[in-house]
Amino acid sequence: MEGGEGVGKSTNLDFLRRYLNDSGIEIVTTREPGGTALGEEIRGLLLNVRGEPVSADAELLLMFAARAQHIFEVIEPALASGKWVLSDRFTDATYAYQCGGRGIDPASVAQLEQLVQGDLRPDYTLLLDAPVEIGMARARKRGELDRFEQEALAFFERVRQSYLQQAREHGDRYRVIDASQPLAAVEKAMETVAGELLSRWRRTTGRQ
Amino acid sequence: MEGGEGVGKSTNLDFLRRYLNDSGIEIVTTREPGGTALGEEIRGLLLNVRGEPVSADAELLLMFAARAQHIFEVIEPALASGKWVLSDRFTDATYAYQCGGRGIDPASVAQLEQLVQGDLRPDYTLLLDAPVEIGMARARKRGELDRFEQEALAFFERVRQSYLQQAREHGDRYRVIDASQPLAAVEKAMETVAGELLSRWRRTTGRQ
Repeated sequence: MEGGEGVGKSTNLDFLRRYLNDSGIEIVTTREPGGTALGEEIRGLLLNVRGEPVSADAELLLMFAARAQHIFEVIEPALASGKWVLSDRFTDATYAYQCGGRGIDPASVAQLEQLVQGDLRPDYTLLLDAPVEIGMARARKRGELDRFEQEALAFFERVRQSYLQQAREHGDRYRVIDASQPLAAVEKAMETVAGELLSRWRRTTGRQ
Repeated sequence: MEGGEGVGKSTNLDFLRRYLNDSGIEIVTTREPGGTALGEEIRGLLLNVRGEPVSADAELLLMFAARAQHIFEVIEPALASGKWVLSDRFTDATYAYQCGGRGIDPASVAQLEQLVQGDLRPDYTLLLDAPVEIGMARARKRGELDRFEQEALAFFERVRQSYLQQAREHGDRYRVIDASQPLAAVEKAMETVAGELLSRWRRTTGRQ
């Protein structure tokens, strides 16, 4: 599940997890950056408001270090045992934040993606999309903004546009949900998407 | 300055720093992994004895994240202001430990080296070399062994051989010092090397 600040990823991820669970799917939910003990420590390094500026390369490499451990410790074992993995953000967030937001060359990210993931890519990506002002207002209500959230609105506009661009480029696996709607309408859209996921899976695996 | 465990890098680095300082060189000493506040936190993540296994990729990316910040915050500013930088380990340690020791593909390291460093390479590398048994006995005397030091002797033998191989491949910038000699003899060898460094620098820059 992907999206900018305040689009309701946590709430909707929880909704989707329960919906799929109720449909008999064994599911592991996780998040990035983080998802493991080492990853959460790296997440702490990344999100803390620091005294010194952090180099864009260091930030990118920390993201992928956490991701490598996440794949090794959580994702690969879960997939190997036949479970679904539902992650609050994955590599597309790196393209959105580091490339779209900070202007890092996507070729560098693609290199690291290949190095760390090999052929591993999400089967399905839900993008919760809302105008930046709406998301930011919600994030602000939740309390103090972390280092990323303190960035200018222009930054988050670039993040949003990068996500929408990725959704167009990978239309086969992307579904975009309008997260500026009332929660009930968002959940209705999530149900439709979850139904699509389930029937695709049943078709592929021949299971009921 | 490169070398395995217990070869006396700290002592000799300090000796070299004082020697060059006394010769009128402005010098910044630093170390890897670490060298910055963020880097030292990453060093902590890497060297702590952890409950869970750490993926080889995660370890490699953490090393280069610390290095990216080190270059950004310490090395580039020092070089830009005309100072020398003397580092306790740099990228050749990654080739020695991660490739030689853990069997990571050197092509992955070369990719990250290019990504993070561009054209930045050490002008001069001192390798303190000693048989593994001697270095390990010294490291053990200093107290508890950290996660790296707990690895088997065979691992350190591979690290040593990788360093020696790099010294052969980059003979133009490498000087190998036999660190199994008594300290006085090692310091004598360091003085010779430092003299060579100074005259090379004076020749290149035309300074006295």
